[in-house]
Amino acid sequence: MRHTAIYPGSFDPLTLGHLDLIERAAHIFDEVIVAVGVNSRKQTFFSAAERLEMVKASVKSIKNVKVDSFGGLLVDYARSKKVHVLLRGLRAFSDFEYEFQMALANRKLAPGIEAIFLMPKETHSYISSSTVREIVDRGGDISQFVPPPVKKFIVKKYSVPRFRAKCDS
Amino acid sequence: MRHTAIYPGSFDPLTLGHLDLIERAAHIFDEVIVAVGVNSRKQTFFSAAERLEMVKASVKSIKNVKVDSFGGLLVDYARSKKVHVLLRGLRAFSDFEYEFQMALANRKLAPGIEAIFLMPKETHSYISSSTVREIVDRGGDISQFVPPPVKKFIVKKYSVPRFRAKCDS
Amino acid sequence: MRHTAIYPGSFDPLTLGHLDLIERAAHIFDEVIVAVGVNSRKQTFFSAAERLEMVKASVKSIKNVKVDSFGGLLVDYARSKKVHVLLRGLRAFSDFEYEFQMALANRKLAPGIEAIFLMPKETHSYISSSTVREIVDRGGDISQFVPPPVKKFIVKKYSVPRFRAKCDS
Amino acid sequence: MRHTAIYPGSFDPLTLGHLDLIERAAHIFDEVIVAVGVNSRKQTFFSAAERLEMVKASVKSIKNVKVDSFGGLLVDYARSKKVHVLLRGLRAFSDFEYEFQMALANRKLAPGIEAIFLMPKETHSYISSSTVREIVDRGGDISQFVPPPVKKFIVKKYSVPRFRAKCDS
Amino acid sequence: MRHTAIYPGSFDPLTLGHLDLIERAAHIFDEVIVAVGVNSRKQTFFSAAERLEMVKASVKSIKNVKVDSFGGLLVDYARSKKVHVLLRGLRAFSDFEYEFQMALANRKLAPGIEAIFLMPKETHSYISSSTVREIVDRGGDISQFVPPPVKKFIVKKYSVPRFRAKCDS
Amino acid sequence: MRHTAIYPGSFDPLTLGHLDLIERAAHIFDEVIVAVGVNSRKQTFFSAAERLEMVKASVKSIKNVKVDSFGGLLVDYARSKKVHVLLRGLRAFSDFEYEFQMALANRKLAPGIEAIFLMPKETHSYISSSTVREIVDRGGDISQFVPPPVKKFIVKKYSVPRFRAKCDS
Repeated sequence: MRHTAIYPGSFDPLTLGHLDLIERAAHIFDEVIVAVGVNSRKQTFFSAAERLEMVKASVKSIKNVKVDSFGGLLVDYARSKKVHVLLRGLRAFSDFEYEFQMALANRKLAPGIEAIFLMPKETHSYISSSTVREIVDRGGDISQFVPPPVKKFIVKKYSVPRFRAKCDS
Repeated sequence: MRHTAIYPGSFDPLTLGHLDLIERAAHIFDEVIVAVGVNSRKQTFFSAAERLEMVKASVKSIKNVKVDSFGGLLVDYARSKKVHVLLRGLRAFSDFEYEFQMALANRKLAPGIEAIFLMPKETHSYISSSTVREIVDRGGDISQFVPPPVKKFIVKKYSVPRFRAKCDS
Repeated sequence: MRHTAIYPGSFDPLTLGHLDLIERAAHIFDEVIVAVGVNSRKQTFFSAAERLEMVKASVKSIKNVKVDSFGGLLVDYARSKKVHVLLRGLRAFSDFEYEFQMALANRKLAPGIEAIFLMPKETHSYISSSTVREIVDRGGDISQFVPPPVKKFIVKKYSVPRFRAKCDS
Repeated sequence: MRHTAIYPGSFDPLTLGHLDLIERAAHIFDEVIVAVGVNSRKQTFFSAAERLEMVKASVKSIKNVKVDSFGGLLVDYARSKKVHVLLRGLRAFSDFEYEFQMALANRKLAPGIEAIFLMPKETHSYISSSTVREIVDRGGDISQFVPPPVKKFIVKKYSVPRFRAKCDS
Repeated sequence: MRHTAIYPGSFDPLTLGHLDLIERAAHIFDEVIVAVGVNSRKQTFFSAAERLEMVKASVKSIKNVKVDSFGGLLVDYARSKKVHVLLRGLRAFSDFEYEFQMALANRKLAPGIEAIFLMPKETHSYISSSTVREIVDRGGDISQFVPPPVKKFIVKKYSVPRFRAKCDS
Repeated sequence: MRHTAIYPGSFDPLTLGHLDLIERAAHIFDEVIVAVGVNSRKQTFFSAAERLEMVKASVKSIKNVKVDSFGGLLVDYARSKKVHVLLRGLRAFSDFEYEFQMALANRKLAPGIEAIFLMPKETHSYISSSTVREIVDRGGDISQFVPPPVKKFIVKKYSVPRFRAKCDS
């Protein structure tokens, strides 16, 4: 039996914490599918295409990891892939609460699908995508929070002049 | 002395968790007033009229429960009804924190009015209005999360084609 | 219909927070029974008789409050009194967790009995019986933490010389 | 590759929540080892032999589950079994905190070993071994909290007269 | 050596809780700089100029407190002032989580800068700027939540007729 | 004005997390007094003399740090030293709750004394004295959890044969 797990998220953007989790999962499961959530009505900082590109660039060296995107309900996507293990990271208490509610709601929607949780490296526990976006927004250095391909992508997109302008306004 | 309690909320929409709480309260108090908060500046998924309609349809068989709406401060509404017991549900920790702050702020605004808390059935503890809205938004089945009248209302409003379109976009 | 609530606890000893809750409950219910838990196998700082005496002395001026003691399961005691409302205080998160588990376990044991929760005055939220015991143990002044009858009782029991000895040892 | 996970615990006693987790794990992994912690210096309600017996009787019908006991450090035991996945349940916040600290400490002691977390059925989330012990201690009925073999074992050990005596004292 | 601490925040608006913290800090440090965060892209209820004016009016009698504003990253601002102590208030759990993440992220961005935390008076623990904004929005009395200069400013800005209109809509 | 802070604790034993906090405090304050709590009635793993010895050996190279011991109430000790700043570490939520209650209780007992909180390095956030004691008790390696002098002390005290015996029993 081949063991596959889906790691869903918005990855807006992918952080070192996400990457750490993907690497851990790749040691436990035969295959890990990183599934980027695409919801045209939910506003994100980076577009779906940008988020996918950053995830792909960051995990390309891990050979049992695939990257995909999905819309609609996560459990419908999992069923379409015939995968019954969903993977989520637990960094902190607020994560726990939200994850707990989602896991139980998903279990009602799809009883055979199970959520399992992993803890990222403690040095990454304080990193959230929203912290990264805030630092980007204020023109700070995100080298210690995101993988090199994500940093490269963001630096290219947001040139220095733009940040200057933003902070002076 | 007649014991009345007000159960305020936005009920956007009413869930099985809310209904469970109303039923429990109806066993403790002589009368329960479900008070739908109406605030023209706070954006809701369902309109005030829709939320009221769904609540009324869901509780009509419980004879000591009334449905009403209110604007402005909750404590002013309670005083106008001569009721000094406010009822709130506690599902989880995040509820607790917010409720704690609101209860203490209300106590300052109206010292004679007391907030009491009930816990919903544990099988409903993971259900929140926002989870329901998210499932509706993604075209999922909400039968296990809301009372039949709420489901009927939502299905009528959001016809299948619209969800298809949404998910494909 | 007469509304009665049972407020159970070990009251080891009764604090100003407990007393505040009893006063609030006495405004909501027709009758409040303060039920001191007596469990010969659970070690307490004060004996059952001492705890009962301190509670009785502290609430004697509130006319719709009775004091009683109980052994065995709380829900069995409530049934024997024909009361279906249990009252508990919520000061903080750790309370919440424990109370949540007990309320759900009791609901399984006795489905008709409901737990409701009140929040004490915020100036009492930091007071716990264990804090009081620790201050007593270190010879500190507990005037701001317990009702006068409790303080009087404790001062009488633990004379100053004993504390001196304790702290020097 | 055969996927094995170790589910360690004191199981003092095994509850329906533990059993639910074992069943979930048995669907995700090829083999699950339930490892009963045996520490001569930590006081338990049931002896190591009793706890092992109750676990074995409760899981005997799940064919890919084995029961074992271990002393010393959990990570040493895992290494001796050549298993690198530890399974833990997350019922509530207090679990989370303790589990978080243990997972990170174990990761330092044995970097290759990974802890993963599962959530039990929400109807079991309020059940803890300590709640069961407290109900046993007060002579209550534990049918809704433990598997039938555990109940049978406990009833046999603690005959009714003993509970009566306990509650009257 | 002169000990200076920066107390950053959006102060939207300044509450009695913030003021209590500033007074406590003024007793511990030789100088306290209250730094109002100005971020043109983050929407606030009161403008940067309004927030600054309210803070200045509220602290003018505390002689070792200065008021300033900053844009961009907080740690850059601290470095520009040659201050290495950041002061934050901890009222409740949700504060704790956010503060924890920000403190650790800031530590990565600027290793020499340290965050320290103070707890406000317990009678102010339930007061948040968002609660104040909500009460203002519903036409309630904020006298017990903000310092007199803040109340005066808000009353002047939001005349009674406007609230009436809002609540009737 | 000379700024001094007292860092109280039982240090049973001192961990790398404690040491990290002491080093941070030594950068903020002119002098830091590490105060080992000595309470003859509270059972500790290491004796008061052993705890003092381990703390002294671990901080001897930090020149503005002194080590002392105290009995009775912490606030009485602080007053006797004419210090009005108490320093505490916040690693996690459970810390927060306990610290919050103690800080507010101490404030009642001694209004002029202020508690301030620091966060240890995130790589130390999972280390608690009780985790260290548990690993010692099970014969594990504590090198990554305590400073070298503490490890040396413990290894000398608990020789390998003893652990073997313990685990086999």
